[in-house]
Amino acid sequence: MTELNLDHIASRLEGLEETIIHRLIDRAQWCVNEAAYAPGQSGFASDSSRTLFELRLLHHEEMDAKFGRFCVPEERPFNSGLPKPLRTVNIPETGLRIRDVDRVNFTSVVLSTYQLLLRNICQDGDDGQYGSSVEHDVYAVQAIARRLHYGALYVAECKFRGDPHGYRRLIKEKDQEALLEKLTRKEVEDKIIARVKEKVKSLQAKVNKAVRVAVKAEPIIVYYRDFLIPLTKQGQILYLLNRESDDNG
Amino acid sequence: MTELNLDHIASRLEGLEETIIHRLIDRAQWCVNEAAYAPGQSGFASDSSRTLFELRLLHHEEMDAKFGRFCVPEERPFNSGLPKPLRTVNIPETGLRIRDVDRVNFTSVVLSTYQLLLRNICQDGDDGQYGSSVEHDVYAVQAIARRLHYGALYVAECKFRGDPHGYRRLIKEKDQEALLEKLTRKEVEDKIIARVKEKVKSLQAKVNKAVRVAVKAEPIIVYYRDFLIPLTKQGQILYLLNRESDDNG
Repeated sequence: MTELNLDHIASRLEGLEETIIHRLIDRAQWCVNEAAYAPGQSGFASDSSRTLFELRLLHHEEMDAKFGRFCVPEERPFNSGLPKPLRTVNIPETGLRIRDVDRVNFTSVVLSTYQLLLRNICQDGDDGQYGSSVEHDVYAVQAIARRLHYGALYVAECKFRGDPHGYRRLIKEKDQEALLEKLTRKEVEDKIIARVKEKVKSLQAKVNKAVRVAVKAEPIIVYYRDFLIPLTKQGQILYLLNRESDDNG
Repeated sequence: MTELNLDHIASRLEGLEETIIHRLIDRAQWCVNEAAYAPGQSGFASDSSRTLFELRLLHHEEMDAKFGRFCVPEERPFNSGLPKPLRTVNIPETGLRIRDVDRVNFTSVVLSTYQLLLRNICQDGDDGQYGSSVEHDVYAVQAIARRLHYGALYVAECKFRGDPHGYRRLIKEKDQEALLEKLTRKEVEDKIIARVKEKVKSLQAKVNKAVRVAVKAEPIIVYYRDFLIPLTKQGQILYLLNRESDDNG
């Protein structure tokens, strides 16, 4: 079973930061490439309504679904109607208390905010490398979504267990504002921001700018501060409001 | 058209190093997980003969093939019999002179050498995260294969153009030993090794070892020195022996 204590969960979240940053840096080796996000320009004869990025994400998730990815609570799909797993996946007891984990699915907002982030980390223009661009987009949005949902679900359950009485009252009153205040830990957020800034810099400290595009820390910090952290907390609230009560808490 | 000069190609190869190292570090966040490489343990009811890794690589490449990945010369597939592209892909004139680029396909040796590398960068044991392990294996072997084939094809063509007369003679004599000697640049190889070592260290200089597994430089250097660099040169020889001559050389 996933160890449900805040230190363990925080360290898992911290460990996901490098993966997110690695993937953003790798994506930024290509230009923005607007055509990859424009409907009717995917080059797929069979599907002219969707963008190349949407098609790549769909095909990737269809594969992932067959391999059982979405049996894991923090892996929420961007698409619906995906195939069933073709393999047996053993998921250890998670400790989460939610019947339908897709009640906490922030993938559509991950997509729209990622579109902004993309334009802030990549060089403007078109280098024709659409396939590579969307391949790396998928890797990036999956890493972001995993972090968001992991932080939403597990941190919320953990905080609840730290004060079941206090949370139960606010949940009963559906007081979202008070829930937000109760689960916010400003000092932790500041630490995350400082850490991400440091990582973006240190991961690229020795980069040869003649051969690699370097990504600035600022847009990634802004993304964490304005989207990822607040959305994670919105996810925590949603989890708590959908939490099933039981005898143990 | 891809700029066919050695400086441009060398800088492309240098830029791929970070991607390879990022992906190896991300894979190393999970244990070796032998079960993912053992036939009959994939959990797929429909396919008991292949390993989970083999199945993941196959499904991933089937998707990639539909998106046109293997229209690009340096993207050689690990599997055969893949579907045709579903989209039109515009590949700029490459400057390569080889009719069947799959004559230079080192994917099977990438797979076997990767299995050794994996055991040297990941922690021993089994953490049950087979799905994540093979997902990241695919990302890693694709990055390695891209680097190998890019270096084989483009560097060889470029070196040929630097001395068509000299190369033509050795190609005619099928003198592999002399070709190897002629295209080897020891000082470049030493520089690559030193650079990779430096990158593995600097990319993890600030890593918090309480939350992330750090990868040692040694196994990656050994991989470059004993496999990736020699195999790239073998690929260059194979390219040259299969090179179509034309009026322009």
